[in-house]
Amino acid sequence: MKINYVTISREYGSGGREVGRKLADKLGIPLYDKEIIEQTAFKTGFAEDYVKKQGEYASARNWIEYSFSARNSYGMSPEDYLWAKQREVILDLVAKGPCVIVGRCADYILRDRTDVLNVFIHADLEKRKYRITEIYKEPENTDKMLKDMDKKRKFNYRYYTEQEWGKCQNYDLTLDSGSLGIDHCVDIIYHICQDDEVEKTPKPAEE
Amino acid sequence: MKINYVTISREYGSGGREVGRKLADKLGIPLYDKEIIEQTAFKTGFAEDYVKKQGEYASARNWIEYSFSARNSYGMSPEDYLWAKQREVILDLVAKGPCVIVGRCADYILRDRTDVLNVFIHADLEKRKYRITEIYKEPENTDKMLKDMDKKRKFNYRYYTEQEWGKCQNYDLTLDSGSLGIDHCVDIIYHICQDDEVEKTPKPAEE
Repeated sequence: MKINYVTISREYGSGGREVGRKLADKLGIPLYDKEIIEQTAFKTGFAEDYVKKQGEYASARNWIEYSFSARNSYGMSPEDYLWAKQREVILDLVAKGPCVIVGRCADYILRDRTDVLNVFIHADLEKRKYRITEIYKEPENTDKMLKDMDKKRKFNYRYYTEQEWGKCQNYDLTLDSGSLGIDHCVDIIYHICQDDEVEKTPKPAEE
Repeated sequence: MKINYVTISREYGSGGREVGRKLADKLGIPLYDKEIIEQTAFKTGFAEDYVKKQGEYASARNWIEYSFSARNSYGMSPEDYLWAKQREVILDLVAKGPCVIVGRCADYILRDRTDVLNVFIHADLEKRKYRITEIYKEPENTDKMLKDMDKKRKFNYRYYTEQEWGKCQNYDLTLDSGSLGIDHCVDIIYHICQDDEVEKTPKPAEE
């Protein structure tokens, strides 16, 4: 079985997006990122900035907040509606052919396919803080902020997939971009994609 | 920084030991496995079979059992004594030069070194059950047995390291041997070991 799709989940500041971009260039296939935001904004009528944030970071801080969030007559909150439409956009883009997708629960959305490689990228706090300051040019880079961002991604993922974000058993491989380096991560994933012998089975539901 | 040591932690039945053996052959360095058991048995006076089992699988089922386990006048249980001696054996073997070590909390024991690559190997239950029946020729291969074995390794690791076994942030990479295949796992680790640019920092203590 050949790998046609790569999904990259990542800790904030670990460089997962850069891995995705370089990998897509190397494989000669698209990286869907802005397209997902633009098309989801178009479909839903939400502002792109709202889609960008809410598509990965659930606004609610906990389950209780979610339970009391605004819901329409179908019992669907704006966040749920956004998620459903974003899922449609991802499936439409995937139907066009091989690609790399960063974040947005794409690993879960494509869980029934056997030609998808699911990767999780992480790095230690010091290296992530360095990346956020030096590369992303974000002024705030405290340990607390980094952990909060991860927490939001984790919560968003858990809420919509009922699975655990960052649990290695949910991915074909996880890589420490801090110790291995971004380019090395790209190379490792690239070589796996070149191999025809990767034998995926559909991801079983988590207990 | 060049990698001189590879530690492989693994789920039961995931083929982590086979990955270690093939990797050591390919790198032309020793895999320490039997040596650790033999030398620990010699140092402690315990039977090799006892060392083999107790060195990775804490006998106590829970913290309460541990609290009430037999302890000598120094407050050290036989398991604690075994662990301390096994640690000495590992450090002595490591002092001889580059090697591959499977299990036995070696990643934690070598945490202050920056030339160690820490790998975790996992696979889905079906593939692990197949491996246990077809390759290990073990008659018992139920989901429960597999989960129990992992639980024991997890508990043993947690008890002696205060860190979480199988948490991807504790490893440079984790690999699904079920989807990627044993040989592919070996190749990925081998290529990382060939690279001089891997930049490790000592593993920080877990919060």
